[in-house]
Amino acid sequence: MTDPFEQSLHQLREDRRQGASALARQALTVLCRSVEQLANDDVATLRRVMAQRCQQLQSVRPSMAVIDRLLEQWQQQVATEALSHAQLSTLMIERAQQLIAQSCQAQDWCARHAAARIRRGQTVISHSRSSTVMKVFEHLVGQDVRVIISESRPLNEGVAVAHRLQQQGFDVTLITDAQLGLFAARADVALVGADSLLADGSVVNKAGTLLLALASGAAQIPFYVCCESDKRCPLVPEQVTLEAMSPLELGHELLAGPGRGHVENIYFDITPAALVTGVFDEAGLQLVTAGG
Amino acid sequence: MTDPFEQSLHQLREDRRQGASALARQALTVLCRSVEQLANDDVATLRRVMAQRCQQLQSVRPSMAVIDRLLEQWQQQVATEALSHAQLSTLMIERAQQLIAQSCQAQDWCARHAAARIRRGQTVISHSRSSTVMKVFEHLVGQDVRVIISESRPLNEGVAVAHRLQQQGFDVTLITDAQLGLFAARADVALVGADSLLADGSVVNKAGTLLLALASGAAQIPFYVCCESDKRCPLVPEQVTLEAMSPLELGHELLAGPGRGHVENIYFDITPAALVTGVFDEAGLQLVTAGG
Repeated sequence: MTDPFEQSLHQLREDRRQGASALARQALTVLCRSVEQLANDDVATLRRVMAQRCQQLQSVRPSMAVIDRLLEQWQQQVATEALSHAQLSTLMIERAQQLIAQSCQAQDWCARHAAARIRRGQTVISHSRSSTVMKVFEHLVGQDVRVIISESRPLNEGVAVAHRLQQQGFDVTLITDAQLGLFAARADVALVGADSLLADGSVVNKAGTLLLALASGAAQIPFYVCCESDKRCPLVPEQVTLEAMSPLELGHELLAGPGRGHVENIYFDITPAALVTGVFDEAGLQLVTAGG
Repeated sequence: MTDPFEQSLHQLREDRRQGASALARQALTVLCRSVEQLANDDVATLRRVMAQRCQQLQSVRPSMAVIDRLLEQWQQQVATEALSHAQLSTLMIERAQQLIAQSCQAQDWCARHAAARIRRGQTVISHSRSSTVMKVFEHLVGQDVRVIISESRPLNEGVAVAHRLQQQGFDVTLITDAQLGLFAARADVALVGADSLLADGSVVNKAGTLLLALASGAAQIPFYVCCESDKRCPLVPEQVTLEAMSPLELGHELLAGPGRGHVENIYFDITPAALVTGVFDEAGLQLVTAGG
């Protein structure tokens, strides 16, 4: 695997640290680099190879609709005829950069809307790591907001969230995922990011999000999702592939024995719309109605 | 800490592997050993020291009502006057042994009732380790029952459960606690043990149990608790001390930073009666009605 594009594909597939928005922008950057690598090819080859690569990138992380969505937009924007190689290269790179900038702006607006809803002194409970939720907290620095964050097994990305928020001056409580039920009752609001928003209003996000949503409902606190509208996708839950990663990530090996043993490591779960109070997107708070 | 009784108290306080019933029986065994250690004292000293030790044992694990309950019964049964030292010693040991045997029998009856409810080929989802639930599975060996078990952070006692069940020939799936929401929907029935049953029908058990109960409700599968009636206690949730253990068990240290950081390790949560389909005790299935 010495081909730089294949390497990039592999990195995107294996990335457990970054959320969907960040990976979508990274996919656009990969497209830019590909254009540069094809500088010496003819325009037909450029068009053909880039279309192939775009398609490969679109399917690299099936739980993350935003990658497909942004790359689809890019594909449409560069589908002009009768351009020279230089013109097409420039267009491809410019469009990718524009989409990256728009994605960052949209994410920042989501974060502003969510931050405006959280009052001084409130306690926010969250699960896993979302770059959008991290931006919400950037807007809340100095507001005396407390944060409860779960470790998010298997790779515990919640621990890095706790460290970062502590550096920013927040009062942070780190818990096991198993304590989400206990601690939802000690928070004022639950806030998570999303990998995808489905057609029926349900939310694909890191496994455990469904549990936090259920616990928030039981504790009668609002459960908010913060994500750009680019994460909306036309699929319904039955059509979604929930990515599974290596069972080795859990660190437990089942012995050989008379019975069969499996370790499961499904990375995402789906939270039904009925459990979601609302979604902060770049236009503001969208209230979710189940089934629509 | 060279005193054997103090050592036993310490062991009971620190035990993370055994459930409440097993620890209650262990506390009775500690009383027997204490009687033997006091063989050369006079009868008044025997009575006084044993009353003190009984009281200390009763408060060693505040989330586990069954310890208090069995030791209270023992205390009442040995509160007879005008016995010789030899007679009182014998009575104390006999009563403790009788209570241990009764506890084992009660546990086995609970397990038989629960096992009778699970049909061939069904999938059972469970959380943490309960000696009563392990007895249920003993009754289900060879019945083609599948088991989904969560690791149960921080010390992952679910992994030992998975190994044991695999050795017994079950088809076992081991998951992170965060996947309980996903996997409840793939099970036919949820089954857990309990540390205490409270006056309002709510259930004290290992942290994460509340999440499994919520997930079971969302997945529309029954959520059963299997435990002896000795685990019933007259307290309501507000009166219960949920034991916290060392934050170091999580294995994450928060850096010193401008913000304050806490790692929380509360071992138990409380599942409201409304989420419990029923309790299998030694008399059979008791349906739970919320609030009563």
